[in-house]
Amino acid sequence: MEKNKDCMYCNPDERQASLMFKIADLSVSEFFFFKEQTHPGRCIVAFKGHAEEIFDLSDEDRTAFFADVAKAAKAIKTAFGPDKINYGAYGDKRPSHLHMHLVPKYENQAEWGMVFEMNPGKVYLSDEEYKAQIAKLLQVL
Amino acid sequence: MEKNKDCMYCNPDERQASLMFKIADLSVSEFFFFKEQTHPGRCIVAFKGHAEEIFDLSDEDRTAFFADVAKAAKAIKTAFGPDKINYGAYGDKRPSHLHMHLVPKYENQAEWGMVFEMNPGKVYLSDEEYKAQIAKLLQVL
Repeated sequence: MEKNKDCMYCNPDERQASLMFKIADLSVSEFFFFKEQTHPGRCIVAFKGHAEEIFDLSDEDRTAFFADVAKAAKAIKTAFGPDKINYGAYGDKRPSHLHMHLVPKYENQAEWGMVFEMNPGKVYLSDEEYKAQIAKLLQVL
Repeated sequence: MEKNKDCMYCNPDERQASLMFKIADLSVSEFFFFKEQTHPGRCIVAFKGHAEEIFDLSDEDRTAFFADVAKAAKAIKTAFGPDKINYGAYGDKRPSHLHMHLVPKYENQAEWGMVFEMNPGKVYLSDEEYKAQIAKLLQVL
């Protein structure tokens, strides 16, 4: 799949490392743990090729991408027990690389009933805590 | 597909009519034009059965649903020419029925580079304007 040299998903760099940890490879995507954890268990699923829009994918890749999103969301539900998962793909600014935010919501807690912020910038964990949360996800993926 | 009697997507009522116009049936979903038009061409694609999460769908329904989302997004891109389309599925409150907001974004215009609001409640069109915008979409669907 084609890559874009200026894109942090195509060429992982310090911008990407500041925002997320790679958890696993899925069939046509990468599964990341989002460092900002206002919503416990928040993750990202990023398509492996450099596509901007869902309709830029082939039928086969689109089917596989959303199977990956479903698998990742199910793992978040099982590991963290949220009341609802929110799904958002934005990417207005270039280079724009198809990725979906998977944001677990908990009744009457942060941003319940509202859209989630792109990055609240408030809640970060210790290295040990990140490892424990990621281990919970990997157990049920 | 199963229905929920209290759900405005399963049983279209005045709440739904106040928020959107039905444009078309797609393979496993309904395509709506969102009345609030801060983002020209904003629409919704709602799954026809009462499912909450993407991972509650069968593989076949999930594949068909995202083919519908891709088809609708491509029609918005063709009819309105946005610089990027944003995709969001929330549904925290019950009854929660799987639907995706398709929000066209235009460079340096409303909410560019940010998440879109659930409903800005600012921009509404005349009946004639709605008809004209929906006709543009139907021509390219």
